[in-house]
This record gives sequence, C-alpha cells and structure tokens, in this order.
Amino acid sequence: MAIRLSDVAARAGVSVKTVSNVINDYPHITEQTRAKVEAAIAALGYRPNVSARSLRKGRSDFIALAIPEMASPYFAELGAAISRAAKRRGITVLIDQTEGEAEAEKLVLDGMRGQLIDGIIFSPITTAPTRIDLAETAKPLVLLGERHAGGGLDHVAVDSVQASFDATTHLISLGRQRIAAIGVGGGAGTGSVRRKGYRRALKAAGLPHDPSLELAGTGYHRDDGAASMRELLTLPDPPDAVFCFNDLLALGALRTLAEAGLKVPDDVAVVGFDDIEDGRYHSPSLTTISPDKEWLADNAVALLLDRIAGTGEAARCDLTVPYTLQIRESTCG
Amino acid sequence: MAIRLSDVAARAGVSVKTVSNVINDYPHITEQTRAKVEAAIAALGYRPNVSARSLRKGRSDFIALAIPEMASPYFAELGAAISRAAKRRGITVLIDQTEGEAEAEKLVLDGMRGQLIDGIIFSPITTAPTRIDLAETAKPLVLLGERHAGGGLDHVAVDSVQASFDATTHLISLGRQRIAAIGVGGGAGTGSVRRKGYRRALKAAGLPHDPSLELAGTGYHRDDGAASMRELLTLPDPPDAVFCFNDLLALGALRTLAEAGLKVPDDVAVVGFDDIEDGRYHSPSLTTISPDKEWLADNAVALLLDRIAGTGEAARCDLTVPYTLQIRESTCG
Repeated sequence: MAIRLSDVAARAGVSVKTVSNVINDYPHITEQTRAKVEAAIAALGYRPNVSARSLRKGRSDFIALAIPEMASPYFAELGAAISRAAKRRGITVLIDQTEGEAEAEKLVLDGMRGQLIDGIIFSPITTAPTRIDLAETAKPLVLLGERHAGGGLDHVAVDSVQASFDATTHLISLGRQRIAAIGVGGGAGTGSVRRKGYRRALKAAGLPHDPSLELAGTGYHRDDGAASMRELLTLPDPPDAVFCFNDLLALGALRTLAEAGLKVPDDVAVVGFDDIEDGRYHSPSLTTISPDKEWLADNAVALLLDRIAGTGEAARCDLTVPYTLQIRESTCG
Repeated sequence: MAIRLSDVAARAGVSVKTVSNVINDYPHITEQTRAKVEAAIAALGYRPNVSARSLRKGRSDFIALAIPEMASPYFAELGAAISRAAKRRGITVLIDQTEGEAEAEKLVLDGMRGQLIDGIIFSPITTAPTRIDLAETAKPLVLLGERHAGGGLDHVAVDSVQASFDATTHLISLGRQRIAAIGVGGGAGTGSVRRKGYRRALKAAGLPHDPSLELAGTGYHRDDGAASMRELLTLPDPPDAVFCFNDLLALGALRTLAEAGLKVPDDVAVVGFDDIEDGRYHSPSLTTISPDKEWLADNAVALLLDRIAGTGEAARCDLTVPYTLQIRESTCG
C-alpha cells in the first residue's frame, strides 16, 4: 500500500502542509520540525512524488545526451565520458539514440517530450544547427559536431579542418605521394570539413589533387571503409596511403588490405580519426587524430550546467577541443 | 512568452476545462470542439505540459535501459538494438550508465528518481538479483545478465554454461590439448557460469583440469585480456588455445600474441564471446559465441511492455536467448 503525505503527517504529529514544506525545502521551518518529519519519512519509507517536486523546484539533476548511434565506438566512448563528467557534478545523464532521424531529433529540440531533464547535449545529423531557433528549443542546449551554429548556440567541437590537415601532412612527411581520402561524403558536415583539411595539406605540399582518390562511401562504418578500400585497390595506380575520416572506416580499410595480402604501412599507410580503443589494440595499431574526449565531455557538461543555472557567459560559447596526432604502427611500423 | 491553456481557450472560444479535456483525450468531446481546440493549439504553437499529463495518464512511452558501461561494445550494440526494438513500438529508450555502482543501481530500483519512464530494462553488476524485492521496485523491471532472480523477476539471458561448453568443445575438436580460460573472475556471475561450461567440456573430453590455465583477470576489457595472455605465455608449458569470456578479452589476447610473434591459430587458437563487430573485422577475424542480440532486444522490450500494460503472463518469465558459434580465422585460419 502506498504511503501518503497524510500518513507521514500523522506519524510526525504535524500538518500535511508542514510535511509538504519540508519535502520542498521551504525556508522558515525549525530544525526540530524538519527532524520529526524526516524521521517519519524514513520510518514509513515514504517516497515523495519527485515528478511533482521537480516541476516546482524547476530542476531534476538529470540531463540528456542525444547522439546518432551508440554502437559507434566514438559515440559510446564519448557518452561514457559525458556520463562520468556529469556524475562528478551530481548529475545523471540519460542517453537518447536518435539514429539521426528527423522525428527523433525534433523530440530533442522539443525538450524530450516533457521528460524531467534540465538540459540537453545534442549531436545532430539531420537538423542543421543554423536552423535551430534558440527561442524554440524547450531546454538549454549544447551542440556537438562539425557544424557551427552561427553564434546562436553553445557549441563544442574539434577543429576538424586543422586536424585533417595534420593527419594528411603526417602521411606526406613519410614520403607518400598518392594519398587517398575515405569518407568525403560523410553526413553532418564531417565529410566536407575533413576534406577541406586534406585538400589544403596536399596543396601546401604541392601534391596534385586526384578526384579518383576521394571516396565518399555510404556511411562511416567498418563495412564502408572495407568497400572503399576495395574500390581504391582496383585503380590502375592505387594509393600508397589512406586518410580515413574516422577510425571505423580505417579498421575496415585495414581488413581489406589484410585480405589483399598488402603490408601496412609498407605498401599502404593508414590514418584514422577519433582514437577509439579498438584502433589502439589492432594489429597493426592505428595512427589517428585523438580528440581529448575527457576535455570535450567535461567542458560540454560544465557549459550546459552553467546555462541551466543561468551563471554562464552572456555570449554563446564556441569551444575548440584539443587533439593530438597519435602515431602508431599503421604509418610507422 | 509561454503560451498558456487560457490563450488556447480564448482563441478556440471554449473554456479552459474543455481545452484540458481535449489535451488529455477525455471521451465525450465532439469532433467539432476537438478540431477547434487542435487548430488553436497549432496556430499558437502551444506545447502541453506533458509532465503533468503523463502523471495523469500514467504512461510516458519512455523506458530506461540501465547498463554498466556504454563504451563496452557488447552493451553499446545491445543498447542500440533495444533502442530500435522499442522505437518499432513507438517507445523511446533512455540509457543510463551505472558503472555497476551501488548508488546508481539503487537509483534504478527506485525508478530513476521520478523520471517519467514506464519501466526499466536492467543489467545489474553490484545488485544481486535475488536481493531485489519486486514489491520494492518502483517501476516494472526486466533483468538482463547471467544471474537468475529466483523466479521473482522477469529475466532474459543466454545459457552461458551451454555456450561456454560449446566454445570449449570447438577448441577440443580441433585437437587442442592445453586450453586456457581468461575471465574466470568476471563480475556479475559471468566468470563462474562460463567457467562451469568450460570445465564441463574439458571433463567430457577427458582432458585434465589445470588451474594454472584459468586466469581471473581484473576486468573484462582489452587490457585485461592482453595482460592475462602475457601471463599465460610465461608458463613453462603455455596453452595451445584460449577461450576468452568476452570478445574484448580475446582482442586483447590477440594483440599480445601478435606482439609475441605467435601465429593464430597455428600456435594458439582463440575463441571469444559476444560477437561484437570489432571481432568480425579483426585480422585474424575472431571465432566467438554470437548471442542473437536482436532477439534479446526484441523480447526484453516486448516482455517489459507487456508488464507495463498488465497484459503479460502472470508467472515471471525466464527467456533464453538463442546463440550460434561463429567459426572464423582465429580458430580455423
């Protein structure tokens, strides 16, 4: 049988209103009264209706993280880091997998249809950040991902152009001449910004730009990387290096190279992007751009909590995530 | 400025109570009235207070999935599958990473502190299922994982003893004589039930049981598998096969074998458990026990939704997830 407010009041010898005041942290309650009510709550195992309480206090200490796919190791590792960063601040994270679908992303912008969450960290795919109207979002929102929101929204991301420039330049510095790129058609702006960095590096080194070495692929998964690599191997003059726009593509490409009996990095050097754990344990281990995921998680959570509390900067923030190039066996065996 | 119920009422030319009745789907409202109110809601962009509405209707169409760690590919893939299975039924899944901590698992049993969720799919680590009192759980609950709940709770799991017997028997059928096991100390009952199947298979084949070939490890991650494999290679008589109690351990072990210059499967054959995508793309690809994750996801969601709707079996269900042994290069190169 459910314990009610009136049961607590009867046991504590106070009015229902007083019990309610204690539960809702109202001021002007004596320590003695508070202690009596709390003892009665504990003795009866009363569970306050937190939904209603949160609505009144206006805070739940839950936030949501909306990501396109949790089975992608980058998002899984990022989600775990954001969950830990929030927990250090006493906040619980609920993760929503949108699959990049318009309907699911709309639910995010609508504040998760009335869930008791204080704010949302959102990595959009279908929704263009520039089309998100801040006045229309139901909850404080921090954006992740390649595309800037034009100053309208807080945004945390890696400088993908510069990172891709560095990854490509690393391959050039090893003397590679025919450097392919896999993933130039990637969604949510990733393909185009990383291609920009790749092309800039080729140009800076005076290497020709060969369109047959740029593969769009159909997605950012292992099978897409494997298929793109097979396509590259059919070229009359195949590449001697590949910059894959994420680690999953690179791991798929490595599988194709192994099946073809080609040596990595001797025949083909491979660089990825994300530094997922899988690449560190792979043989050969994967050279990759390593965004500081802990930094990203910590700063995205702090930024969102500042917005929720109303203590943040007045201007919207655009934070750039630090990264390093992790050189491993796939380029320097 | 927030649109209020009274604004909608004024525009529709009806009472506030009528607007409220339409929003809450009360019967006895004429189609004409409903159309007027819905037109006013659309015109003003009114967003009903769904929190309050859900409390009255008693359903939110959100469920939670509580897992120990989302960066573990098995849980990431399972979470993605459960999210899809729920979406097919119009339900949104919110994922909570407990890290297996007692406090976070208690939050799950308490019904996620008032979140508007209809039920929870829960993979516990610290909380012993037999100690979960159904009368104390705040929400309908379906348990995942190795440990049975003694009939008190709905439970969905692989028959890990039989699956481990099959994995070990596969190695025996290849003529391997010294078969090690990595992960026997694994948490949440996994280590002990899989060891049971491993030992049974050795016994059935008349192979001796050598305690020095059973490694507990400190966890179920790649680094634990790599460290355990290094330990096995220091033995005077190292193993010619290893059954790792999950794929991450196996991938770590494969890395150690590659670094040691040993050939897989010629020198050491390796079997994992989980069939994560990483193992399928690895070189050599990983032989593994493949639980049907889609089946698991679909049945766990269906079972929970039946409980929520009150339409399920009266008796608690214990569902056994089908699995196959996927034979790949790590045992049959």
